[in-house]
Amino acid sequence: DFLNALEEVHPAFGVSEEELQQVVQNGIIHFDAVVDEILRSGKLLVEQVRTSTRTPLVSVLLHGPPGTGKTALGASIAQASEFPFIKLISPDSMVGYSESQKVAAITKVFADSYKSPLSVIVVDNIERLIDWTPMGARFSNAVLQALLVLFGRRPPKGRRLLIIATSSQRPILSDIGFSETFDSELYVPPISSLRALEYVLREVELFRSNDERRDIIKELQYAGFKGQDGVPSNLQVGIKRDIIKEPQDAGLEGQDDMPLKLQIGIKKLLSMIEMARQEPENVGQRLMGLLMGLGM
Amino acid sequence: DFLNALEEVHPAFGVSEEELQQVVQNGIIHFDAVVDEILRSGKLLVEQVRTSTRTPLVSVLLHGPPGTGKTALGASIAQASEFPFIKLISPDSMVGYSESQKVAAITKVFADSYKSPLSVIVVDNIERLIDWTPMGARFSNAVLQALLVLFGRRPPKGRRLLIIATSSQRPILSDIGFSETFDSELYVPPISSLRALEYVLREVELFRSNDERRDIIKELQYAGFKGQDGVPSNLQVGIKRDIIKEPQDAGLEGQDDMPLKLQIGIKKLLSMIEMARQEPENVGQRLMGLLMGLGM
Amino acid sequence: DFLNALEEVHPAFGVSEEELQQVVQNGIIHFDAVVDEILRSGKLLVEQVRTSTRTPLVSVLLHGPPGTGKTALGASIAQASEFPFIKLISPDSMVGYSESQKVAAITKVFADSYKSPLSVIVVDNIERLIDWTPMGARFSNAVLQALLVLFGRRPPKGRRLLIIATSSQRPILSDIGFSETFDSELYVPPISSLRALEYVLREVELFRSNDERRDIIKELQYAGFKGQDGVPSNLQVGIKRDIIKEPQDAGLEGQDDMPLKLQIGIKKLLSMIEMARQEPENVGQRLMGLLMGLGM
Amino acid sequence: DFLNALEEVHPAFGVSEEELQQVVQNGIIHFDAVVDEILRSGKLLVEQVRTSTRTPLVSVLLHGPPGTGKTALGASIAQASEFPFIKLISPDSMVGYSESQKVAAITKVFADSYKSPLSVIVVDNIERLIDWTPMGARFSNAVLQALLVLFGRRPPKGRRLLIIATSSQRPILSDIGFSETFDSELYVPPISSLRALEYVLREVELFRSNDERRDIIKELQYAGFKGQDGVPSNLQVGIKRDIIKEPQDAGLEGQDDMPLKLQIGIKKLLSMIEMARQEPENVGQRLMGLLMGLGM
Amino acid sequence: DFLNALEEVHPAFGVSEEELQQVVQNGIIHFDAVVDEILRSGKLLVEQVRTSTRTPLVSVLLHGPPGTGKTALGASIAQASEFPFIKLISPDSMVGYSESQKVAAITKVFADSYKSPLSVIVVDNIERLIDWTPMGARFSNAVLQALLVLFGRRPPKGRRLLIIATSSQRPILSDIGFSETFDSELYVPPISSLRALEYVLREVELFRSNDERRDIIKELQYAGFKGQDGVPSNLQVGIKRDIIKEPQDAGLEGQDDMPLKLQIGIKKLLSMIEMARQEPENVGQRLMGLLMGLGM
Amino acid sequence: DFLNALEEVHPAFGVSEEELQQVVQNGIIHFDAVVDEILRSGKLLVEQVRTSTRTPLVSVLLHGPPGTGKTALGASIAQASEFPFIKLISPDSMVGYSESQKVAAITKVFADSYKSPLSVIVVDNIERLIDWTPMGARFSNAVLQALLVLFGRRPPKGRRLLIIATSSQRPILSDIGFSETFDSELYVPPISSLRALEYVLREVELFRSNDERRDIIKELQYAGFKGQDGVPSNLQVGIKRDIIKEPQDAGLEGQDDMPLKLQIGIKKLLSMIEMARQEPENVGQRLMGLLMGLGM
Ligand SMILES: Nc1ncnc2c1ncn2[C@@H]1O[C@H](COP(=O)(O)OP(=O)(O)OP(=O)(O)O)[C@@H](O)[C@H]1O
Ligand SMILES: Nc1ncnc2c1ncn2[C@@H]1O[C@H](COP(=O)(O)OP(=O)(O)OP(=O)(O)O)[C@@H](O)[C@H]1O
Ligand SMILES: Nc1ncnc2c1ncn2[C@@H]1O[C@H](COP(=O)(O)OP(=O)(O)OP(=O)(O)O)[C@@H](O)[C@H]1O
Ligand SMILES: Nc1ncnc2c1ncn2[C@@H]1O[C@H](COP(=O)(O)OP(=O)(O)OP(=O)(O)O)[C@@H](O)[C@H]1O
Ligand SMILES: Nc1ncnc2c1ncn2[C@@H]1O[C@H](COP(=O)(O)OP(=O)(O)OP(=O)(O)O)[C@@H](O)[C@H]1O
Ligand SMILES: Nc1ncnc2c1ncn2[C@@H]1O[C@H](COP(=O)(O)OP(=O)(O)OP(=O)(O)O)[C@@H](O)[C@H]1O
Ligand SMILES: [Mg+2]
Ligand SMILES: [Mg+2]
Ligand SMILES: [Mg+2]
Ligand SMILES: [Mg+2]
Ligand SMILES: [Mg+2]
Ligand SMILES: [Mg+2]
Repeated sequence: DFLNALEEVHPAFGVSEEELQQVVQNGIIHFDAVVDEILRSGKLLVEQVRTSTRTPLVSVLLHGPPGTGKTALGASIAQASEFPFIKLISPDSMVGYSESQKVAAITKVFADSYKSPLSVIVVDNIERLIDWTPMGARFSNAVLQALLVLFGRRPPKGRRLLIIATSSQRPILSDIGFSETFDSELYVPPISSLRALEYVLREVELFRSNDERRDIIKELQYAGFKGQDGVPSNLQVGIKRDIIKEPQDAGLEGQDDMPLKLQIGIKKLLSMIEMARQEPENVGQRLMGLLMGLGM
Repeated sequence: DFLNALEEVHPAFGVSEEELQQVVQNGIIHFDAVVDEILRSGKLLVEQVRTSTRTPLVSVLLHGPPGTGKTALGASIAQASEFPFIKLISPDSMVGYSESQKVAAITKVFADSYKSPLSVIVVDNIERLIDWTPMGARFSNAVLQALLVLFGRRPPKGRRLLIIATSSQRPILSDIGFSETFDSELYVPPISSLRALEYVLREVELFRSNDERRDIIKELQYAGFKGQDGVPSNLQVGIKRDIIKEPQDAGLEGQDDMPLKLQIGIKKLLSMIEMARQEPENVGQRLMGLLMGLGM
Repeated sequence: DFLNALEEVHPAFGVSEEELQQVVQNGIIHFDAVVDEILRSGKLLVEQVRTSTRTPLVSVLLHGPPGTGKTALGASIAQASEFPFIKLISPDSMVGYSESQKVAAITKVFADSYKSPLSVIVVDNIERLIDWTPMGARFSNAVLQALLVLFGRRPPKGRRLLIIATSSQRPILSDIGFSETFDSELYVPPISSLRALEYVLREVELFRSNDERRDIIKELQYAGFKGQDGVPSNLQVGIKRDIIKEPQDAGLEGQDDMPLKLQIGIKKLLSMIEMARQEPENVGQRLMGLLMGLGM
Repeated sequence: DFLNALEEVHPAFGVSEEELQQVVQNGIIHFDAVVDEILRSGKLLVEQVRTSTRTPLVSVLLHGPPGTGKTALGASIAQASEFPFIKLISPDSMVGYSESQKVAAITKVFADSYKSPLSVIVVDNIERLIDWTPMGARFSNAVLQALLVLFGRRPPKGRRLLIIATSSQRPILSDIGFSETFDSELYVPPISSLRALEYVLREVELFRSNDERRDIIKELQYAGFKGQDGVPSNLQVGIKRDIIKEPQDAGLEGQDDMPLKLQIGIKKLLSMIEMARQEPENVGQRLMGLLMGLGM
Repeated sequence: DFLNALEEVHPAFGVSEEELQQVVQNGIIHFDAVVDEILRSGKLLVEQVRTSTRTPLVSVLLHGPPGTGKTALGASIAQASEFPFIKLISPDSMVGYSESQKVAAITKVFADSYKSPLSVIVVDNIERLIDWTPMGARFSNAVLQALLVLFGRRPPKGRRLLIIATSSQRPILSDIGFSETFDSELYVPPISSLRALEYVLREVELFRSNDERRDIIKELQYAGFKGQDGVPSNLQVGIKRDIIKEPQDAGLEGQDDMPLKLQIGIKKLLSMIEMARQEPENVGQRLMGLLMGLGM
Repeated sequence: DFLNALEEVHPAFGVSEEELQQVVQNGIIHFDAVVDEILRSGKLLVEQVRTSTRTPLVSVLLHGPPGTGKTALGASIAQASEFPFIKLISPDSMVGYSESQKVAAITKVFADSYKSPLSVIVVDNIERLIDWTPMGARFSNAVLQALLVLFGRRPPKGRRLLIIATSSQRPILSDIGFSETFDSELYVPPISSLRALEYVLREVELFRSNDERRDIIKELQYAGFKGQDGVPSNLQVGIKRDIIKEPQDAGLEGQDDMPLKLQIGIKKLLSMIEMARQEPENVGQRLMGLLMGLGM
């Protein structure tokens, strides 16, 4: 079973095992059906690369607000492929690189992948790879151009490649020329239902008892904020942005009129949970304060 | 016969056979009369270079939305010329080149071509060669200027050269100084008729039976979207943009008022077909979903 | 007791003792409850890093108008942690560095910190580290990008890191891409109550007698300006800007309608006090003049 | 006779014979009185340099839409001067040069010219020499500044120099600082009369019989488009743009209201003629199609 | 007495005597009370540095229209301090320096000052040090950032430093990030009263007799222009721009509605006086003409 | 007599005799009183430098439309000074120099001048020295900043320097920071009276007889255009632009409403005269045509 395989992948030639595990340090919590859908879609793309001779190159973009788990999900899909070549291209390992050093490093990973019959490359955090800053809309055009070409360049005969890219700046990607680049796009949403929130709280065992946990959820409900429990899962492979409107891609802060809508990335949530844990006598109130500070 | 010749070209001195075949990996599917017209126009230009002493330099631009087959068609025309010198200038082989390295590489191909009595150069994807990005309208002026001069520079006495350029950013080309540069321009349209779509589906044998295929086409028709089957072929060598309005050159997304107009590049279509193939039990519905996600 | 510990920290391996003491030269005067709250919040974060295995990286931003004591408070919290690795990254030691030298110096401190099980890095004055100038919105994108990655990069297994950053240009930080970067943000306010002002005057012994000091406070009150004594302390760890409006973050000068509102950073206040001291016969009037020149 | 001399110039010391002939490959067709006027004006300027001691430096700009024959006419005038030093400065020989290499190459030609008592330099295609692109109005200021100084710098005592510059971007030249630079300006117009068109068709012997040619002209007339046969020649040495309005300097495409006005450069016309020649059975209709595609 | 000390300062270790005298070549004319106030304020700051241990760094900005004597006054204050280290940082000695050479030179002076227990540095003409030009708001951000840090960096333990900066572009300084940088600001006004003008004329002995001088002053009065004799001196240490509006900081030319208001820098006035001296028979009329040409 | 001295200056140590004569090749024609006034003003400034100890540095700007004789007049004044050091800084000798080479060359001339007790430097064509182009307002800030400092830097003790700068872009000079830089400004006007025109024609002996010349002047008058004979000379040393409006500084072309106003620089006029001379049988009509082409 693919989903279970995530936990038991074996080392392989050309696989940067450690790097990948590092980014999934806190595991994958299945707090919502959408999490499974993303993993299943990823599996389908992996299979397409493994089997279809007509599409030796397949690319997918995981996008969503900051901290929603894009990197962890991308790395998980890659690891589960068990392809002989699995590599992570991440800004973390390129601090202080010049433009041309970055281009060289990125290009090398792609060149290496061409030596393996089946490869998957996770290109993490595109906006950071291209040194994007909103002020003055600055970025490295050299890195951008390299990515644009590499994402479209077919591997040599007999080689197959899956590219998994991540970004929390999808609108920017279109503006700089990435439209039509990816075969498929997957939206990674923030947590927006109380049910999902409770699921996470249970998994991380923040509270000593189930009652404590349920009380805090009730209190949140009472405080007037509704999650979007009734919303059906909106994820399908290849369905583009025009069909399904993303909830405020540009951050988690646009909830002025419905002030108590829950919108929080799993990464931030886990961080808040640890902060709350610091005051054991007062965990619940502390968590509520932190969540409401975020506009929940 | 020229069109048949595409399949049986022989290797020749100075011809980069492999590179050219790489870009026509999936062959040319004759899904519409326009495909044949483009190839015939290409053949006429090849003949002009071969025979006319007064025009030792002839240039043509293949332009159209992303993924409509410009590169494959350009390479096909070049291969079919059977000229002793046939080269592809492509961004794929220049990842990470500096501006001056690009200019040097491009200039060298032109210089080499001057040694052959008859040459054809395919200059693929101009916008990528010049590192174009819409954000801030950035591009490499050095590469641009080199192209502008090389596209207009006559070969030395006794040498003849055909330049086949491709671009999916034709409006940009005008803006940066390419108007009046080409002797001829050929528009490569996306697939926009159900008939052409069905033709492709048959060729790639997506469905197990003709009935299945026809059913899906009917379903699409029923779903309310009309292709443009009645539109006459609009392609003539040298007819300029002012006469024949291109359908939304800037992408495949401007169909808001007629939401179900078919507009899809052959490259994207082939990619979707392979995705649909992954779920054999459900090929038809999968394909429909993918096509409609694209605004079909 | 943590607050007392500030005075009696012991030297430790990897701690830049001298640099840190240099920036707290004039000590911490506890003129308001907010000062203690900031120090307590800092202590909580220190403890989280020391104890929680799930959050090996915690970051906090101290922000507020120029001269409010951000650097001194950040350094105090760092010193009090008694972590084996405590370093100050400050523009003071990078005058004339090139962009890449700065990036290298900053990156090195982070790399060094990864060798210690527990580390704290004070990244002082972000806007100056990135060479920010409002004219033309210029800054070093190279340094910015390095900071953005380093602030989000997890230390290697078994290492834990607290990052304390300071800035008096918080709105700019959002504009250049720092939103969602910090786990927590602490606002360092200027002195805005007469009570706090009097507290400082007493501590630094500007006046020879208590009566003199009280007279000058009364005179200020009489001159019509009210401090904000009644305002409750507004500082909580992790409460974000949306909840609590900062009083005019962009400087100390926007008090046109309420011309006599007290708003002065502790650093500037201490400087004025020393100026006033120069005219011993006239200390009180001199100080009043200086304070009112500041819009008090 | 000067005009005849064009065909029979003799080689001379310092003359780049071959380069010059290369750009007049298709000869000069005297399709209109204006062609002779330009050549005569050129001859007058040549004589002024040869004889007048007070103007050791004379400069003239040949300007007009793309492909109207500026380079060929400039080279012809230069060749006919029979000066001991005749050189062509052309972007064709500077592909890939850096800014400073261009400046050095250009400066060297001028320095060389100062060694000859009488010199003529053709500075071809100024906008390309300065790497002009309309997008972002980019250009090489270094090359521009060198040209501005060289065009105004007097040769040393006893040396005389004629500068013939060409450009199809005259409005740009003013914008970048070239106004007041040239002693004289000559406008090179496109072909805009049926009479001139017929003259060219006869000269190049496109049709097998005079009747065929006349038929096609009649057909064009019948198709509703009028040339400007009645317009008197508008060319005089030194008459500036304010007096005689150029017909849409910025290209050949602005004829929306009078859709069938003939406006075509001789270079493009010769190219179309060769295209039409490719379909011998259908030459006339092919030519008409091509001409009308151009807005004729 | 401090003011008299200006004339009799003794050489000292680390003092660039000659440079300082060079900029006060024409001495200080005490044409107005404001001149003495500036010198007295300067003396107070010198004393603060000498005596207060809590403020080892004190900075002051002398600002005002071009030619009002900022450099001369700053140098005079520095010389009168008799500190063992007195240095002038001036653009005059950095012509043609690269950005990094400037930063190095400036940084070195500060580093040298840290070796002396008491130092004063005159940083002359900030806008020129940073290569400021209003066109395109260009300047050297590298030099700017170095100044911003150096002006705020405390000297090492036991060292004290007074920084005297000058600028005629104070509004620009705010725009580029200099607000809140200086402990104190002193406005150096142009001459704007007939009384002050007459004082200068007497000091420089332009006229042979007192009567001649008085006549010319009367004539100026008669010509309708009024100086601002009644305006009280507006200079106080530390009083900021919000309180006292400077008369048109951006130059001496904005006097359209009150065409005969006197506004002239002492430097320009001395220059005019020397011009007038060239025509001994007509000194008075010449001076009037020059003054009125300046909008007086 | 100073004016006569122009013709008989003697060589001197440090004087670049040849360069200076080169720029006055066609002599000075005294076509208007303003010419003598400029020379006389120049002489006064020369005398001021020679005699006044209080102004060891005097600078003057000669400005006016292109071709009005600024360079020739500046060089003449310099030559007539008979100072031991006379140098011309001209863009003509710096073609292709890098920014830093230009700065070095300019700085060296100033440094050399400081070795002579009396020096004059002609800084010709400031806009070209700083690589000014109106498109995008580009220029070399490095050269600009060097000039700004050098123009204000006093020579060492005992040295005196006169700076004569020329420019046809005075409004630009203000925009880039040159206001308040010059001690004096002299406007060099174009020829705008028929009387002055006739004077020049007589001096250069264009016509064989006086009658011919007078006839052509009458014809011009008859053609409806009036010169400005009645306008009094408007030149005074030091009178600034606010008083006397220059006639359209930005070129000679803004005369739309009064189409026949004479406005022509002496340089252009001399060039036209030589052109007209080429057709001896038709000199008068040729000259009229050329003059009217210029908007006369
Ligand atoms: N269902 C989940 N999906 C993704 N991550 C999860 C999930 N459950 C737990 N996690 C944990 O949450 C964290 C997600 O962080 P991650 O860095 O992947 O987010 P991100 O969207 O890439 O953030 P950023 O926008 O900053 O790049 C990881 O530590 C991961 O182990
Ligand atoms: N009629 C056709 N014309 C062109 N390509 C075809 C046709 N039929 C099938 N193909 C296949 O479709 C693909 C077209 O891709 P190609 O790269 O040529 O498109 P493109 O327009 O150059 O794309 P891009 O805009 O990304 O450069 C090729 O794999 C080609 O083999
Ligand atoms: N309660 C306090 N909080 C902070 N600093 C204090 C306090 N009491 C006294 N001080 C002293 O005030 C000064 C604060 O200066 P500091 O440089 O820390 O301010 P800052 O906000 O970092 O200024 P800047 O905005 O210029 O960076 C220090 O000298 C410190 O010793
Ligand atoms: N009367 C003519 N004038 C100019 N060229 C002519 C004439 N008759 C024939 N020709 C031919 O026409 C061509 C003109 O091309 P040329 O390169 O000179 O045009 P151009 O205006 O310089 O083009 P571009 O704007 O691209 O620089 C040459 O091949 C020349 O031999
Ligand atoms: N009261 C005075 N204050 C200042 N300078 C005076 C005074 N009296 C005479 N001077 C003389 O006037 C001149 C002032 O020139 P200075 O260079 O100091 O002006 P500045 O304001 O620095 O000019 P800039 O704006 O060009 O830098 C000096 O020569 C100085 O000797
Ligand atoms: N009265 C005059 N004043 C100036 N130049 C004169 C005069 N009479 C004749 N001349 C001649 O006219 C020419 C003036 O050219 P000059 O280069 O000095 O003009 P310019 O204003 O510097 O031009 P530009 O704006 O191009 O720099 C010289 O050849 C000079 O000998
Ligand atoms: Mg991520
Ligand atoms: Mg392509
Ligand atoms: Mg600080
Ligand atoms: Mg040409
Ligand atoms: Mg000064
Ligand atoms: Mg000149």
